[in-house]
Amino acid sequence: MTDFEQLMAYQRETSALAQVAGRLGWDQETVMPRGAAGQRSEEMAAMESVLHERRSSARVGDLLETAQAPDAAGEAQLRDIRRAFERANKVPADLAKQIARVTSQAQGLWAQARADEDVAAFLPVLEQVVALKRQEGAALANGGDVYDAMLDDYEPGMTAVEISALFDAMRPRLVALRAAVLAQSSPRGVTGHFDEQAQMQLARRVAKVFGYDMSRGRVDKAVHPFSSGSGSDVRITTRTNGHDPFNCLYSTIHEVGHATYEQNIAPDYALTPLGQGVSMGVHESQSRIYENQLGRSRAFTGWLFTEMKAAFGDFGVADADAFYAAVNRVAKGHIRTEADEVQYNLHIMLRYDLERALMAGDLQVTELEAAWNDRFAADFGYGVDKPSNGCLQDVHWSVGLFGYFPTYSLGNVYAGCLHEALRRAVPDLDTQLAAGDTSGATAWLAENVQCHGGLYAPRDLIERAYGHDVSEAPLLDYLEAKFNAIYEV
Amino acid sequence: MTDFEQLMAYQRETSALAQVAGRLGWDQETVMPRGAAGQRSEEMAAMESVLHERRSSARVGDLLETAQAPDAAGEAQLRDIRRAFERANKVPADLAKQIARVTSQAQGLWAQARADEDVAAFLPVLEQVVALKRQEGAALANGGDVYDAMLDDYEPGMTAVEISALFDAMRPRLVALRAAVLAQSSPRGVTGHFDEQAQMQLARRVAKVFGYDMSRGRVDKAVHPFSSGSGSDVRITTRTNGHDPFNCLYSTIHEVGHATYEQNIAPDYALTPLGQGVSMGVHESQSRIYENQLGRSRAFTGWLFTEMKAAFGDFGVADADAFYAAVNRVAKGHIRTEADEVQYNLHIMLRYDLERALMAGDLQVTELEAAWNDRFAADFGYGVDKPSNGCLQDVHWSVGLFGYFPTYSLGNVYAGCLHEALRRAVPDLDTQLAAGDTSGATAWLAENVQCHGGLYAPRDLIERAYGHDVSEAPLLDYLEAKFNAIYEV
Repeated sequence: MTDFEQLMAYQRETSALAQVAGRLGWDQETVMPRGAAGQRSEEMAAMESVLHERRSSARVGDLLETAQAPDAAGEAQLRDIRRAFERANKVPADLAKQIARVTSQAQGLWAQARADEDVAAFLPVLEQVVALKRQEGAALANGGDVYDAMLDDYEPGMTAVEISALFDAMRPRLVALRAAVLAQSSPRGVTGHFDEQAQMQLARRVAKVFGYDMSRGRVDKAVHPFSSGSGSDVRITTRTNGHDPFNCLYSTIHEVGHATYEQNIAPDYALTPLGQGVSMGVHESQSRIYENQLGRSRAFTGWLFTEMKAAFGDFGVADADAFYAAVNRVAKGHIRTEADEVQYNLHIMLRYDLERALMAGDLQVTELEAAWNDRFAADFGYGVDKPSNGCLQDVHWSVGLFGYFPTYSLGNVYAGCLHEALRRAVPDLDTQLAAGDTSGATAWLAENVQCHGGLYAPRDLIERAYGHDVSEAPLLDYLEAKFNAIYEV
Repeated sequence: MTDFEQLMAYQRETSALAQVAGRLGWDQETVMPRGAAGQRSEEMAAMESVLHERRSSARVGDLLETAQAPDAAGEAQLRDIRRAFERANKVPADLAKQIARVTSQAQGLWAQARADEDVAAFLPVLEQVVALKRQEGAALANGGDVYDAMLDDYEPGMTAVEISALFDAMRPRLVALRAAVLAQSSPRGVTGHFDEQAQMQLARRVAKVFGYDMSRGRVDKAVHPFSSGSGSDVRITTRTNGHDPFNCLYSTIHEVGHATYEQNIAPDYALTPLGQGVSMGVHESQSRIYENQLGRSRAFTGWLFTEMKAAFGDFGVADADAFYAAVNRVAKGHIRTEADEVQYNLHIMLRYDLERALMAGDLQVTELEAAWNDRFAADFGYGVDKPSNGCLQDVHWSVGLFGYFPTYSLGNVYAGCLHEALRRAVPDLDTQLAAGDTSGATAWLAENVQCHGGLYAPRDLIERAYGHDVSEAPLLDYLEAKFNAIYEV
């Protein structure tokens, strides 16, 4: 074996172990017995320790010195292996292990605190998480910007300066659109009770309609919808609410966007560094375009309306136009994951500013709840009534995901660009979607984005598919056109 | 940290990783998407490789040289760590990895071959498994007996000579009992259809009655019932058959015996070498005494009869005595896992002789089906009608478990000894069981067997609880008394 082949063989095992570690996360959220949480923390920490040791091992360093890539994909493999090697060597093994252990415990404490509406019960462990992540960020930044170093974990190459510029450009137009829309009368929502088993049945059907390969995946219920795994074992979760079938359906379509991205990566890349989505932003672009630009389009909702009538009977919506308006209803609310397309990015901007302040040491954990509530009232014009509607609503900080939130909005921006290109490439897209056929769209995305895995840098990948520089304009143009029409602004 | 503490900390991580590897097995049998089998093989092999590296690492060897145990439990920890270290260093890493990969594939091929009744489709991979296990056995035996070396993996200290002596002593009395019982007319079985969801509901209830802690476990369906995990995450599987509720119920009680053994080990031993059942034979003694001596007793079946009438209505059995006879029905059949107490050990003896011959090279894989069918006809007096009723019925050989089968009968022998001691210790046991109360029995087993984990050698453990040398006599006395009474021999 050449040095390159040896390195790739070693890496293949590392990737397989990373899949195992990821599946522990799935297990924890879906099937793990409640009393196993303590032991699970130790299992996660042990896996993290093994992965850290392998990623930072001198053997990898030595092989990186001598390995010669046979082709461009090989070069990209080496680039990613080197990146992970350098990252792993910057973070002390003990710190990595401690983060894994503390965040595993913190997640359980967060869930309990959220259920109990008890911020104080969560703060001590959040304080630990913040302190550990700041240590990690400082080690990664190596004198540079701590937050940029964290962002780089989720969106390689992106900086807070660029994110802030993007958000500054988006904010006025979003604020204006929100105000204009909320000034109009709101369309009717759906009414009645929606059987939860029938919701799951329809969710599984819709998942298949969007190309999710169930022979290499599965759909389960969990508190927080997510997608987990790469290659031939990519599982998603969703949730049900008897009064709101859209929660289940659109969470499912969203996660299917993530999951099919993983499923459609070139099989040659399986269990290699290129064999997974290239960044969180690009991942989110797929989940968002599936959920919003496709799933909430007038064309697709026309098909979905018929399916929902068949599944649930009458639910107080007169026709397909009213259904389209109901699906795209803009309403006041506190919860990010339930936010509509108009307001979603404002939720992200709030979190982005708060977490940057936490990481910079400009905001203390004890001040977080007040800071959240003040900012929310300022941005949304009404107060936070309880912590589960405020700073306890998201799992992210409990598990140490600082630098992750902005990638959601970046995904929306990427989705805007891709959607514009997709409409050019598939002129009869609406005719297809109206027939419940997503194959034109999903094939274009598979070919232009998904199959490449980690081959191209995130922004390069989007710009190759879009044909222009990444810009917030297509997203905002799309949002204004869509919501001004629905709300007759 | 002292050298002992360092060694134990390292070992704790290894134990946590072993739990993760075990849970991959659970996942594969319960929830894994079908298309993930190939990737899963690589994941299992990677975990196996990590575990092998850790168990055989020079660091463990160095610490074993210098570590001083602080107490008797510490001595036992060192004994087990040394044993695993020496074992791991005898088996080349590549061989261990290859065995993990091939057996993972072989399990899938076995399941397919069994479904297709196609022995030939399974033979090529079985040939590989046998060859690899013989290599492993030779490496472990180091010039000694290959089969003894394998047996030692499952029942430390036990030899084929001892097993053969035990089986030779059991065989004539079992053959005579079987003949006498089968000469009588058979009691009626149950009739009708038993709703499979109601079976699972009753199974979960019975699991709790036998002390299974559901906050640290769960019950799922799988093709093959099993128990998986140690410490605070011990899961069981069972299966249902619409016409035979006993399949589900007694599989569940059996697996609960395994699972509560793991759950009742002293918490101090969690994630250490002592923190799991000491041997397969002792494990099986717990599952068997729960299933048979307790679960199929006249007293407990009286309680169960009332529960089953409440769950399923009339099922063609007149009263509790008839129900007891139905539960303990001795009938012709081909399947080991469905065999009654009288015939079960004869199924084991067949497998024991065949697998010893396979491992010795005296029997070729290509001759296996014929050898099985000949031996079965000779022992049971009728032929094998299809491979799924013959040599394809058990998963064990596909996953490389040679040397495992005899521990089932050893477990029966141990259970016989423990049952005799239990009856002495809890004189009103039958009164308790008749009220659906297993706590007297399970507390005695927890205190005298289960809590000790790996502290004592298997035979020592049983002899401490029993108060005498291990012997097949209590089991055979119990079987003869029970079945001569039921069948009025």
